Amino acid sequence: MGTGDDAALISVPAGAELAISTDTLVSGKHFFADADPYRLGYKSLAVNLSDMAAMGAKPRWALLALTLPEELVNQNTAWLAEFSKGFFTLADRYHVELIGGDTTAGPLNIGIQIIGEVAAGKALRRSGAQPGDDIWVSGKLGDAALALCHELQQITLEPEEIAQCLPSLLTPVARVELGQRLIGLAHSAIDISDGLAADLGHILAASEKAACINIIDIPCSAVLKKYRQQSIAIDCLLAGGDDYELCFTAAKTNRREIEKLSVELTLPLTRIGEIYSGAGLTVKDAQGSAMTLDSKGYDHFNA
Amino acid sequence: MGTGDDAALISVPAGAELAISTDTLVSGKHFFADADPYRLGYKSLAVNLSDMAAMGAKPRWALLALTLPEELVNQNTAWLAEFSKGFFTLADRYHVELIGGDTTAGPLNIGIQIIGEVAAGKALRRSGAQPGDDIWVSGKLGDAALALCHELQQITLEPEEIAQCLPSLLTPVARVELGQRLIGLAHSAIDISDGLAADLGHILAASEKAACINIIDIPCSAVLKKYRQQSIAIDCLLAGGDDYELCFTAAKTNRREIEKLSVELTLPLTRIGEIYSGAGLTVKDAQGSAMTLDSKGYDHFNA
Repeated sequence: MGTGDDAALISVPAGAELAISTDTLVSGKHFFADADPYRLGYKSLAVNLSDMAAMGAKPRWALLALTLPEELVNQNTAWLAEFSKGFFTLADRYHVELIGGDTTAGPLNIGIQIIGEVAAGKALRRSGAQPGDDIWVSGKLGDAALALCHELQQITLEPEEIAQCLPSLLTPVARVELGQRLIGLAHSAIDISDGLAADLGHILAASEKAACINIIDIPCSAVLKKYRQQSIAIDCLLAGGDDYELCFTAAKTNRREIEKLSVELTLPLTRIGEIYSGAGLTVKDAQGSAMTLDSKGYDHFNA
Repeated sequence: MGTGDDAALISVPAGAELAISTDTLVSGKHFFADADPYRLGYKSLAVNLSDMAAMGAKPRWALLALTLPEELVNQNTAWLAEFSKGFFTLADRYHVELIGGDTTAGPLNIGIQIIGEVAAGKALRRSGAQPGDDIWVSGKLGDAALALCHELQQITLEPEEIAQCLPSLLTPVARVELGQRLIGLAHSAIDISDGLAADLGHILAASEKAACINIIDIPCSAVLKKYRQQSIAIDCLLAGGDDYELCFTAAKTNRREIEKLSVELTLPLTRIGEIYSGAGLTVKDAQGSAMTLDSKGYDHFNA
């Protein structure tokens, strides 16, 4: 049942659990105040889809709580039309139904709730990593953060370089299919929204395990490789949020299956290290020496 | 499963549907910037519980998306402690579990999502009103709006009068038990969050019916009665939001059952009019003449 009553009603198929999550995007914190509304609508849903991907859930329904400044409602209805177009472009792709929401006047604040289905007891969790597991990441890391550094004038990219990196920041791709296909293959998973070190750290904390990863194994774009001698690029790779790729761990015996999945989805899946007993994350540099991590992730209150 | 993973997981009992809703409270719009945080936490959940009540659903889970100004996080952690105390006081009363959320820095914005259970196909809807149905409201209407008028210096209440009205505005009571008990008794229901005329209007629109109510039958406090000669008090009664009482329609044959329920819940349930074929809402004054409605409800963009 769609919008219209005081609440939406959903039926859950027998044998399924629901995965439910909420993510808020705030002007000036998650996006620039003058951000393109189409991309904003798209990204707002994408970051929520990414939470479903991390659980291996099939996204089904969304709610949208939109707080809008008066000027966006009264003077420029094009804003809302473009925002909606971006939102529904992605929603339609994954057959996600908007079933409810709330619209209020106030400083721009985009709250989305997403609800997905997953077979009971099968959801991917952060807590399942086992000693000996390979650590994998999907796609390439760091481009979104590199583009943000450029926008914040902390680094200067060539025009063709920023053109290559910006889509990762503005219209990230949630790994929705990958997440669902990892059920039964992966022991643990998380989406990389706060940065690889922080998010892998969440897996280690929840699983009560240690890990070692090699920085040269972390997949990244040619642009990021070019700047790899600069500490800011290392930060992008290890601590850059907004990539929305998946990090997961799986038994070594599943390597072939995961490589086949990579081919099938035409999505790079790369082994970057291993899970051990113990606690803590070790990152080895190109020479095999343990690195000191300056920043372990993106903290929305301090970054 | 509580917070910790990228999404919360919930299992739905066989034969149940989920009712899901989201309501956002924005500083300066839904509450004064210096509002007491305990009451704010309480009310934020109450308005969401009210949506469950309107559907006849049993509230089970909530998510909290909190956008907080830096000063509330950094300098005054008492704010968050008090807010939480208010939120959990009410959550505990209804055994509602907080299963997830998101915390972000930015202008104060409180987004809550609530999920409840209701027997499949049994939820109360806006669309079920039948000709000949009695129109009922719970509790008393208008005190919340009257208190707001006083706070906005549109009317001046005596100190003991404002003390009587303020709780309706600051810590409204969601009619959670009543909603669940109305399943099988009521043909349609809504919670009065935008004002009686607007919310009953939603029932009429969804049901494609007309209604006539008598203003002298609308239950109100002695305080509101005292000011009833002033048009502002009439506005409070018909168009005052924030009451969070229920308005419902039921067959005349259910009168005795509903009166028994009123006694059992020690909650006044009052008949205020009747549903007819056709369209539109007629409000009759004390002399039985149709009134002209100046304002039909509270619009968050124009009020």
